[in-house]
Amino acid sequence: MSDTRNVPVLADSVRTTAHGVEILDRRVYPFERRWVHCATMEDVAVAIEQMVTQSSGPLFATTAGMTLAAREARNAAPGDAAGRLRAAGRRLIATRPTNNHIRDAVHAILSATVDGPLAEAPGEELVAAVAKAAAEHDAGYRSGAEALGRYAAELLEDGARVLTHCWGDAYLIGAVRAAEEMGKRLEFVCTETRPYLQGARLTAATLVEMGYRPTVITDGMVPAALADGLADVALVASDRVTMDGHVVNKVGTLAVALAAQAFGVPFYVLSHAPDPLSPGIEDVEIEHRDGDEVLRVLGTRSAAEGARGYYPAFDATPPHLVTRIVTAHGAFEPARVSDHFRSSTDLDNEEQPAR
Amino acid sequence: MSDTRNVPVLADSVRTTAHGVEILDRRVYPFERRWVHCATMEDVAVAIEQMVTQSSGPLFATTAGMTLAAREARNAAPGDAAGRLRAAGRRLIATRPTNNHIRDAVHAILSATVDGPLAEAPGEELVAAVAKAAAEHDAGYRSGAEALGRYAAELLEDGARVLTHCWGDAYLIGAVRAAEEMGKRLEFVCTETRPYLQGARLTAATLVEMGYRPTVITDGMVPAALADGLADVALVASDRVTMDGHVVNKVGTLAVALAAQAFGVPFYVLSHAPDPLSPGIEDVEIEHRDGDEVLRVLGTRSAAEGARGYYPAFDATPPHLVTRIVTAHGAFEPARVSDHFRSSTDLDNEEQPAR
Repeated sequence: MSDTRNVPVLADSVRTTAHGVEILDRRVYPFERRWVHCATMEDVAVAIEQMVTQSSGPLFATTAGMTLAAREARNAAPGDAAGRLRAAGRRLIATRPTNNHIRDAVHAILSATVDGPLAEAPGEELVAAVAKAAAEHDAGYRSGAEALGRYAAELLEDGARVLTHCWGDAYLIGAVRAAEEMGKRLEFVCTETRPYLQGARLTAATLVEMGYRPTVITDGMVPAALADGLADVALVASDRVTMDGHVVNKVGTLAVALAAQAFGVPFYVLSHAPDPLSPGIEDVEIEHRDGDEVLRVLGTRSAAEGARGYYPAFDATPPHLVTRIVTAHGAFEPARVSDHFRSSTDLDNEEQPAR
Repeated sequence: MSDTRNVPVLADSVRTTAHGVEILDRRVYPFERRWVHCATMEDVAVAIEQMVTQSSGPLFATTAGMTLAAREARNAAPGDAAGRLRAAGRRLIATRPTNNHIRDAVHAILSATVDGPLAEAPGEELVAAVAKAAAEHDAGYRSGAEALGRYAAELLEDGARVLTHCWGDAYLIGAVRAAEEMGKRLEFVCTETRPYLQGARLTAATLVEMGYRPTVITDGMVPAALADGLADVALVASDRVTMDGHVVNKVGTLAVALAAQAFGVPFYVLSHAPDPLSPGIEDVEIEHRDGDEVLRVLGTRSAAEGARGYYPAFDATPPHLVTRIVTAHGAFEPARVSDHFRSSTDLDNEEQPAR
């Protein structure tokens, strides 16, 4: 069945070609379908920094960027090529610090190549090996998203009305598809997710594409919507989950969690795996972006002149507000999410600490 | 001192002239200074419905609209004029149901005129009497806002960083001016308040006009901002306060209250007086506006096609989340806000139940 389903536009929005990498510009989707051409690894890094792509996008952009970096080092001496690949990895990791996908993708590719068996490989061989490692990492991510999607769908009742925040991308698509395969019909209420409006644009557009008719609310309406009984469950993705069960996700997630607690609504979080390099919340760097991004909507000034903006891109939800963290290995109480690594499944290999 | 201070633009944004009523269009302020001309009472009612003005604005628009209605009935027989004025009152009350200012303004004017001593007055006399009652009601509102502003300012420490939601209008201006007179310097963090962005536009613009440099955040950032220690106190106005201490205010207020509770920040509410006609929250009608208003920002589509919007214009904050309700008679614990009516001050007259 999964072979015959259409792939949502956003599920295939980073594409490596012979000429570079094409990234769908999520800042304007779905109002425009504009692809940003990245000729070099540096172009990819800048695209990530500038929010051309987000959510699952930077992971795919990172593996694609490493592929370009290998091509750029094609004619370097073997040792030099390894150094250039590692530098490319550092450049990509520096783009956005909070989500651990970028770091993990870089380390997976380096471990499979220059930090592993191919430290002295000639350029052409490295190009092929990096492309292969990139494809494997992408595939592992996609299969992990499908796995956690199934665990998430098991938590949702038929007819559940699901409140989302921001854009859960592969995780959300995985959960929706799995629910469909289980014969469960869902409804969706999506926060618009200012300042970039990922909920109103990306989540809503993709759910429409998948055959739903989502209801959009502003970010401040979550408690009012729950008071009105508009949703039965909150379901969000995450940029990083700490080993002690803190959830770092798009700013506003904590507001959703507080409202869910106040109205007795389960709060479910989707995450490939907790991050072994983040024992606690103090190990996570919360990215603060330019405050001016808050003063505009879709490029148009929305705040009075003379005001300044403040833009923490993520917030941290403490474990006591989280009902379950759903990983590729199951649904865990937040205090026990580190048990993810004790679960034995065929996904274990890719879930190891990246270093 | 108060005589020499400039009046902020929004504090004088409904003006009755010989030709009708001019209302500053708050949907576009401060980006445009566009005044909507209302030639008739009906024009005023439509302007209120369409959000040309809001916060304190509908009160002033209502007294102005009643003034126009009296002019329109100038040549009617005395009994007919009274009926037309009462019908005008019903029309204005029907514009927006949640805030009790409109209802109270209509009843104050009717009580002073056709429902009181002037039931049979000829048209010209009624025009003058309605204009006088309108001016008195406006003045009473302004003096009440100044009084509650002083009580609010007493609660704020010098240097306090104040989190606002939506636009508190005369109440907020009153509090800021009173704090200045007490020598207290304040800072402000303003939620942008989607969908109409009253915080980013009206609150921020007026605070800039008054010499401050407010920080704007999106509505979802309130818990993150409090976690980061950005504000010491939350201060919001209210559209209605029930006698048992529920606070009805612009949607998103409850989200601010939940965040304030989570981070131990006092949550102060400004209200002329609790509403004697609302013993509990079940007595308040929460206006739901067209969901399409959520799908746009400043007139531009911001949500994907195929999505629908949901727009409860207000939410209800329960008493246990409120630290103090500051009225024209003092600062009350929410459970004791009905004591407002036991306080003896020179404002007692205008604080009586409207019917």
